[in-house]
Amino acid sequence: MNRPITLDQYLPILKWGKQYDKTKLTDDSMASVIVAIMLIPQALAYALVAGLPPQAGLYASIFGLSVYALFGTSNSLSVGPVAVLSLMTAAALAKLGLDDPGQVVAAALTLAFLSGVFLLMLGLLRLGFMANFLSHPVISAFITASAIIIGLSQLQHLLGISSSGQNVVELLTSLSRSIDEINWPTLALGIASIIIIIWCRTGLKFWLRKRDCSVRLVTSISRSGPIFIALLSGLLCYVLRLDQHGVELLGYVPAGLPGFTVPDFSAELIRNLFWSAVLLSIIGFVESVSVAQTLSAKRREKIDLDQELVGLGAANIATSFSGGFPVCGGFSRSVVNFDAGAASPASGFFTAILIALVALLFTPLLFWLPKVALASIIVVAVYPLLDFSTLGKAWRYSKADFTAVSITLFLTLLVGVEIGIAAGVLASILMHLYKTSQPHVAVIGRVPGTEHFRNVHRHEVETFDNILSIRIDESLYFANTRFLEELIFSLMAEKPRLEHVVLMCTAVNAIDMSALQTLEKINQTLSELGIKLHLSEVKGPIMDKLIKTNLFANLSGANYLSHNQAVEDLRDQGPAPVDT
Amino acid sequence: MNRPITLDQYLPILKWGKQYDKTKLTDDSMASVIVAIMLIPQALAYALVAGLPPQAGLYASIFGLSVYALFGTSNSLSVGPVAVLSLMTAAALAKLGLDDPGQVVAAALTLAFLSGVFLLMLGLLRLGFMANFLSHPVISAFITASAIIIGLSQLQHLLGISSSGQNVVELLTSLSRSIDEINWPTLALGIASIIIIIWCRTGLKFWLRKRDCSVRLVTSISRSGPIFIALLSGLLCYVLRLDQHGVELLGYVPAGLPGFTVPDFSAELIRNLFWSAVLLSIIGFVESVSVAQTLSAKRREKIDLDQELVGLGAANIATSFSGGFPVCGGFSRSVVNFDAGAASPASGFFTAILIALVALLFTPLLFWLPKVALASIIVVAVYPLLDFSTLGKAWRYSKADFTAVSITLFLTLLVGVEIGIAAGVLASILMHLYKTSQPHVAVIGRVPGTEHFRNVHRHEVETFDNILSIRIDESLYFANTRFLEELIFSLMAEKPRLEHVVLMCTAVNAIDMSALQTLEKINQTLSELGIKLHLSEVKGPIMDKLIKTNLFANLSGANYLSHNQAVEDLRDQGPAPVDT
Repeated sequence: MNRPITLDQYLPILKWGKQYDKTKLTDDSMASVIVAIMLIPQALAYALVAGLPPQAGLYASIFGLSVYALFGTSNSLSVGPVAVLSLMTAAALAKLGLDDPGQVVAAALTLAFLSGVFLLMLGLLRLGFMANFLSHPVISAFITASAIIIGLSQLQHLLGISSSGQNVVELLTSLSRSIDEINWPTLALGIASIIIIIWCRTGLKFWLRKRDCSVRLVTSISRSGPIFIALLSGLLCYVLRLDQHGVELLGYVPAGLPGFTVPDFSAELIRNLFWSAVLLSIIGFVESVSVAQTLSAKRREKIDLDQELVGLGAANIATSFSGGFPVCGGFSRSVVNFDAGAASPASGFFTAILIALVALLFTPLLFWLPKVALASIIVVAVYPLLDFSTLGKAWRYSKADFTAVSITLFLTLLVGVEIGIAAGVLASILMHLYKTSQPHVAVIGRVPGTEHFRNVHRHEVETFDNILSIRIDESLYFANTRFLEELIFSLMAEKPRLEHVVLMCTAVNAIDMSALQTLEKINQTLSELGIKLHLSEVKGPIMDKLIKTNLFANLSGANYLSHNQAVEDLRDQGPAPVDT
Repeated sequence: MNRPITLDQYLPILKWGKQYDKTKLTDDSMASVIVAIMLIPQALAYALVAGLPPQAGLYASIFGLSVYALFGTSNSLSVGPVAVLSLMTAAALAKLGLDDPGQVVAAALTLAFLSGVFLLMLGLLRLGFMANFLSHPVISAFITASAIIIGLSQLQHLLGISSSGQNVVELLTSLSRSIDEINWPTLALGIASIIIIIWCRTGLKFWLRKRDCSVRLVTSISRSGPIFIALLSGLLCYVLRLDQHGVELLGYVPAGLPGFTVPDFSAELIRNLFWSAVLLSIIGFVESVSVAQTLSAKRREKIDLDQELVGLGAANIATSFSGGFPVCGGFSRSVVNFDAGAASPASGFFTAILIALVALLFTPLLFWLPKVALASIIVVAVYPLLDFSTLGKAWRYSKADFTAVSITLFLTLLVGVEIGIAAGVLASILMHLYKTSQPHVAVIGRVPGTEHFRNVHRHEVETFDNILSIRIDESLYFANTRFLEELIFSLMAEKPRLEHVVLMCTAVNAIDMSALQTLEKINQTLSELGIKLHLSEVKGPIMDKLIKTNLFANLSGANYLSHNQAVEDLRDQGPAPVDT
């Protein structure tokens, strides 16, 4: 479908900007404050997950949010650093084996740039369907495994020891080596922080709700646990000089906005980061659109998936030139943005302004922020991502899905995020091909006294010695043509008096060229044996295509509109003349 | 389906051996002579295509044929060196960059061994379905491109110059460099050979047929052009000492059977040849079964695809220990074997004995065989493999198939066989996923006065303001769940008075877990808006699976056996209570 291309399609701000009014301005600015309160500590924390300096998280938020506001179509999506992409960034950077922190920062810019270009390209070429190759259970397993790895990677900060690694095995080995060096003040601070943040989101929220506070107030207070913990723990460290008791501080964070940064464009780096960028882009896109789609549907709004790719691509390119790292729409922040009443993408723009103010004015305060506080914030943020129920559901519902889920979960945990997700995608595609390569097929007979045909193994039906009626419950395409051929030839070998084979095509939604050639081959082989091949109940769109081929011209039998008619016609008919 | 495992399943000779009698013996031995006449020059020629010494072709035939006879299930398949596998072998060996001919021979053994183990493994694990991922048009394009490359690679022998290369570009560049060194006696001998071989298969055959000769006699004489050319050209070279006029001879071929050879099992070589062996095995298997299946169907016999994998695997392992190289069932030889009346796999065994006699007694004669004669035999043998009609057919029938065909054809010609076939497989899988990710979906209404529902855009139908009826013409799985979600939400946004969405599932053959979760999500989003989701006409096997889930427990609407019933029920029903 070729739509006419207009400027406001690529710059949605031209559309919603026209209808912008005071009510929307109030809603957006209120929502932006709540999201900023939530985002500031997360941005710092996720930069640490990615293995980058904390300010990178602020920079990525400022430019991710404001550029998405220009190009995005979702009124609720809150773009910025997210847990899973930060972990994938860390994994991609670790592969490079760089020692110089400056090089690591530059490589993160390259990664964001490549990811941005890839997303933009998919959007402009309208190739968003590629994200469909990620099945739900595979994403769910991948996110669960990523959350476990992130949680384990934060244990070092919670325990005040040091560890490293990109998978569960490496992290546990590394942690076990220094487990006897636990710093107890750090651990105490961590546990207290976790309890307070959780209490804000549960006990306090419940208490406020009972007092009939507005949804906006409840949301903002219950979500301000992290910023409260950041302020309180910083104050404690400053007053009690906890750093002298072994509590690690965030340290110096430069003030001000980022300068114009240029990613490292060396060919080798691009080659090394290319596949990481592709995987990271697809995961980021899928995460973003799944929350954006749910939220927009709740207000009967529409989002444009291809334009979302453009928006996310532009946001990533922007962060790559401003000291950031890969970003996408965050699930929980977007929900909070929605609940807080965000009415347009401008909400994101206002959040960006607030974060920019923090970067300009408050970075000196960040010096006293203990890393354990950020670790607590991360642990609470990733906990809801754990979802083991998918494994059980998949086991009960479909063994093929279960296989793909297990492969993703265990490879991600044991080897790493990139191998894990790549294997998951491959496994789900292969499983799908496997399932459709052995379609459900039934030899059918007529229910006596009716015109209905049913599986001979399930029902008492009448069949005829000279007719083989087969119903195929799957589209015919390359992966199952050999199955069809083998099936017909082996059923034929069992029916010595066979004169007619009739394929009932009610459930055949497509016939590709392999299947067409197979039908031609089956037709020829059968007619050499004096057996006619017939089709029945072929669907309209398929008939439209088949009519353009020679199939019907060469078909030894006929094409019947109804299967019953075929059987009535053929039951007393003799065999076809043998073709010599 | 778990069949009981018996010894004669894995050793089919125990089955057919019991019923072996004198008639079959006569048939098999007659057929074996005809196949041997055809195979001897081909075996020598294909060894040269593979870049190996000529005797390797004889050895591969002897052990390929006799071991397949023990394990194979086809009465007609003639195993041995074939054109396409020889080309793939040459490509795999060229990648290694070996200089020492001894190392090249050893690497070919490793390739045959790996390929044998892979096939055997697929057979024992019953994973033969993997061969289904090769679509017909892709194989056809691949074989056409391979035939072109083989033909070009033989031009050097026909012209008496030297060239090298693994793709059309390399071969043409290389040929053009020495085009002014053409040896005219060689070229004359080559052209004459080609004309005589073709005349045997056309003019002579026609002449014999008119004289009412038996099929067996016609087949054997018309197919003996190559061996006649081999004898005649060898005699000419010996008598006229054509080698002194620049005609290149085959040279010394060692007499006797091969000793026991051990493939090179170094880890690096195995790593380098692994993917080559996988591609080569799948191509060999697909070629073999497609001819074996056609021929066995003609006599209403059955072959067992998994056992065919075992047979071909065992044959390749055998050749790897006896100085051979990868083998599979050859198309034209198998057809000749069938036409000549082969009644059991024993025919292959007798052919092996005849070839062994040649290797024992007649190799001194091969010294005088000119290479140009073998090149002529190859050119005539590969010419029928050219099939450009697939391109045109695919263009007219399906643009997706056309894309996969073009990619395969051009990448094979321009880059090489391995990249070509790998890209073809990938392209056809992606094209299939792309097509099914955007399924045919129709908003439907009722044909007035009937219970039939049809596409609102194609028919005059009645619709209801409060009901959205959608028919989905595809199985629901991960690649199209996002499409479904987007479609429903965007159609919903256009119908302000909507109260019910009914999905008609007559053509839905499967619902995977991604689709199940998407249905649950759509259900929830709709019910928050006060819209109920209903299903109609869900198929039995899908109902069986869905009943085990929570879908129906949580579904805001109902599950109707008929779509008409749904519409009758819902047209006057109010909206669902809004879920808060």
